[in-house]
Amino acid sequence: MAIGHVALVGAGPGDPELLTMKAVKALAQAEVVVHDRLVSDAVLKVAPDSAMRISVGKEAGRHSYKQEEINDLLVHLALQGKNIVRLKGGDPFVFGRACEEIEALEAHGITWSVVPGITAAQGCASSARVPLTHRGLARSLRFVTGHCRADQPLDLDWKGLADPQTTVVFYMGHATAPQLSAKLIENGLPAETPTLCISQGTTPQERRMFTRLDRLPVDLERAHLPSPILIIVGNAVGWRPGQSTGDIGDETGLPSCEPDSAGAGQRRRFGRT
Amino acid sequence: MAIGHVALVGAGPGDPELLTMKAVKALAQAEVVVHDRLVSDAVLKVAPDSAMRISVGKEAGRHSYKQEEINDLLVHLALQGKNIVRLKGGDPFVFGRACEEIEALEAHGITWSVVPGITAAQGCASSARVPLTHRGLARSLRFVTGHCRADQPLDLDWKGLADPQTTVVFYMGHATAPQLSAKLIENGLPAETPTLCISQGTTPQERRMFTRLDRLPVDLERAHLPSPILIIVGNAVGWRPGQSTGDIGDETGLPSCEPDSAGAGQRRRFGRT
Repeated sequence: MAIGHVALVGAGPGDPELLTMKAVKALAQAEVVVHDRLVSDAVLKVAPDSAMRISVGKEAGRHSYKQEEINDLLVHLALQGKNIVRLKGGDPFVFGRACEEIEALEAHGITWSVVPGITAAQGCASSARVPLTHRGLARSLRFVTGHCRADQPLDLDWKGLADPQTTVVFYMGHATAPQLSAKLIENGLPAETPTLCISQGTTPQERRMFTRLDRLPVDLERAHLPSPILIIVGNAVGWRPGQSTGDIGDETGLPSCEPDSAGAGQRRRFGRT
Repeated sequence: MAIGHVALVGAGPGDPELLTMKAVKALAQAEVVVHDRLVSDAVLKVAPDSAMRISVGKEAGRHSYKQEEINDLLVHLALQGKNIVRLKGGDPFVFGRACEEIEALEAHGITWSVVPGITAAQGCASSARVPLTHRGLARSLRFVTGHCRADQPLDLDWKGLADPQTTVVFYMGHATAPQLSAKLIENGLPAETPTLCISQGTTPQERRMFTRLDRLPVDLERAHLPSPILIIVGNAVGWRPGQSTGDIGDETGLPSCEPDSAGAGQRRRFGRT
């Protein structure tokens, strides 16, 4: 029996239309789809009905599958000759832990490929209509994981992160938002730096909260946004058409308004409330 | 006559299969496609034959269209009622200068939307089979533009960029590679930091050059790689399956080998030569 192939495929941020053509092709040919918890049902529907679907979802504090168990599962299925899609939220090579799985596959002579995906930062920026880079506001873009063990402080290069000319995107930063806010301000980022939290970005349940860096912890706690949440910090977040380098926020610290997707004016504190 | 709509669409890195479904839909409905020079012919073919195609390509040192002229063109076409796709390489909100165009559209009451695209870093990482983040090698990912005016030095936060735990991707860094290399080393990044240059990534003409940070300028000059070139610097670039945190490079400073896309061993200095 021929050994199967594993395609590590980026599922994108949630909206199935943000899958690449290549990802759709891979899913159409899949016999087994091994997917993360955060991959949306709408994306999973792209695979044929006949494909076996296995959820290996991990939740903070509750691991239904350990990483080693996922590795073993992929190897087991591939050695059975199955054509496997390992479907990961966003992009497999951006905080996707693809390497651990690839090492297990390689150790068993199993072939693999990677299909990139739109990462949450890109999907959320487009749906919130805020740029990630901007001449004059953000000349660099940085992706960081805000996730850490429950008993440990976030160990990041705070001095480097606190650059007013960089847009910093925190993946999985919900629990550590108070630390993020305090550390960035402590290292020199202005308290009023525009900050955007996006919950379930690019899905029909998307909600957005615009705030400023110092109010992030309080506003985030009040807002009760469901996971996953992406936090984007930087002056580019405060951009709105016609005010490319203008003032950011009124006295409440919130950008006053921005056109919605139809181009009409709308208060933009929440995309949905 | 109704005013047209402008969709700013990410064309991805080159491979038309890396277009999102949403981008393909937008292209299928386009009456006019206004595209950058770097958008591949294969991607342009996705639009219907009936669609007008206008190249507004910019080349370093030679601007066929000034940004203001592109803005005016989009406004002019939209006011004629055309359904327009403004097709940009990669992602419009990542070094895409989308904001200048959006401001012009807003000033004329023209509606717009953004469709994200796979950015070059993601496309190149997948095709070169190197991760952009990796537990233990790279906990942060940074996108920077290496482009600057011919008469000016690159003004970047070198201290912050020289973080051995970050993967730094330089867009348009071809001309400034000697500066990148010198400044990063001067600010503490080890001379042997793995570095990958990818020319025309994800296209049939893709070529890759693996080197180390201190040899980047000399190797890049010798290699005569055609534009566009992406430069990825960081320990994650040196990863290969089975050696997650192992030694990086042999005495020549080059990673010794990595499986090709079929999983067979192959020297990986050049993807194609």
